[in-house]
Amino acid sequence: MENHLGVQTVDEEFSSPLREVSATKDSREADPSSHTHHSYAHMKDDLQKRLRRIEGQVRGIQKMVENDRYCVDILVQIAAIQSAMKQVGLVILESHTRGCVRDAIASDTGGDAKIDELMDVIRQFTKG
Amino acid sequence: MENHLGVQTVDEEFSSPLREVSATKDSREADPSSHTHHSYAHMKDDLQKRLRRIEGQVRGIQKMVENDRYCVDILVQIAAIQSAMKQVGLVILESHTRGCVRDAIASDTGGDAKIDELMDVIRQFTKG
Amino acid sequence: MENHLGVQTVDEEFSSPLREVSATKDSREADPSSHTHHSYAHMKDDLQKRLRRIEGQVRGIQKMVENDRYCVDILVQIAAIQSAMKQVGLVILESHTRGCVRDAIASDTGGDAKIDELMDVIRQFTKG
Amino acid sequence: MENHLGVQTVDEEFSSPLREVSATKDSREADPSSHTHHSYAHMKDDLQKRLRRIEGQVRGIQKMVENDRYCVDILVQIAAIQSAMKQVGLVILESHTRGCVRDAIASDTGGDAKIDELMDVIRQFTKG
Repeated sequence: MENHLGVQTVDEEFSSPLREVSATKDSREADPSSHTHHSYAHMKDDLQKRLRRIEGQVRGIQKMVENDRYCVDILVQIAAIQSAMKQVGLVILESHTRGCVRDAIASDTGGDAKIDELMDVIRQFTKG
Repeated sequence: MENHLGVQTVDEEFSSPLREVSATKDSREADPSSHTHHSYAHMKDDLQKRLRRIEGQVRGIQKMVENDRYCVDILVQIAAIQSAMKQVGLVILESHTRGCVRDAIASDTGGDAKIDELMDVIRQFTKG
Repeated sequence: MENHLGVQTVDEEFSSPLREVSATKDSREADPSSHTHHSYAHMKDDLQKRLRRIEGQVRGIQKMVENDRYCVDILVQIAAIQSAMKQVGLVILESHTRGCVRDAIASDTGGDAKIDELMDVIRQFTKG
Repeated sequence: MENHLGVQTVDEEFSSPLREVSATKDSREADPSSHTHHSYAHMKDDLQKRLRRIEGQVRGIQKMVENDRYCVDILVQIAAIQSAMKQVGLVILESHTRGCVRDAIASDTGGDAKIDELMDVIRQFTKG
């Protein structure tokens, strides 16, 4: 599936990197209630704004490469994207901890499993 | 300027983060020869492919947020983008070092300035 | 205070970097019960072993510098220490989350403050 | 070999992590001239001072663990060490690039091999 930009759309793009977690997701999607009200719900607008900005920055780098712009200027942009993406990650991580993780512990429903999952994702984040 | 996705296009997106380097760029653009043949020229196709893929992944995260997908699945995708973006950065950093930096040193034309610039950009990268 | 290696001992070394958190610590120390049984208690031996090993590696780098060893070999060692130190951090972070943070949430005693603190420290860690 | 602190000394500590590079080092040591005047020579005192300070900080963390200090205070110290260690790495990386790498390129003696090595070590550093 390609969109008007000739860019493969998300589902296909993601097919390989997500293969290992897709089983988990399928099982979640079998229970529609489980992914309806997430902890980031109150900040969706802010997140989408940040993500569209990052998307624009990635497209900006494509244009810089196309126009043979100076390597170091491109690298500065990449570092800026890394930083912006990390902020998005930290915002979601924080809302997840304050929401999903906290609730599971407080209501004694799978708190340990949530902490396992949280630690896994923190380990992935700190890989840099 | 907005495109069909209602996303601001690159030049505007970049206006503020690039403000501090724009003076440098302008001076470079005054000399057209200086940004014509960059060290990444031979790998432009590979870079563009990687960048379009990352762009698709960022758009994928927007869709995940829109569809209230589970926080941790989003975080896993963000970590994947961070990793892919870092690889692009390392590829450009390597070609820059083998190309621009090496040539400036070998031909004794501003090698020290190139190394200053290289170290600055490495410091930005290792900020994580 | 200097030890037999002519190296300033910890308390003095730490005086400046810790200045900003010392108020917190003082208040904690006023309540002795608060720092007696920490979540890492069951893994103190493992942590100490890792830390002594890291200490040995840092001393090893001093020796490499003293003996004019090759820069890249030193850099490889530094990367190894970074990695080992990060592992220690992740181990403590995990035991802290499973212990202190979880307990505060489960017993409804300052869970939010613990999460604030946790997020702050995660942000410091991801600075790289 | 143990020193008075009961801490294994460097050579043994390093035996396993360095196994893969030890061949390289041995060959270098076979040529004594190759590791005599390194690019960091002029900043040995500064480097040793930083490394002794880091060693003191690592020992400080051991003491904190021993005294059941609060997890978050330990994590703050670990982040401080990570940051200090990264600075040492960047200082050596910079002097290596300005010295060894630059000289090899300028004198046309193995510049490409030096750049290969430099990129490898930068990749290790950005692993976080």
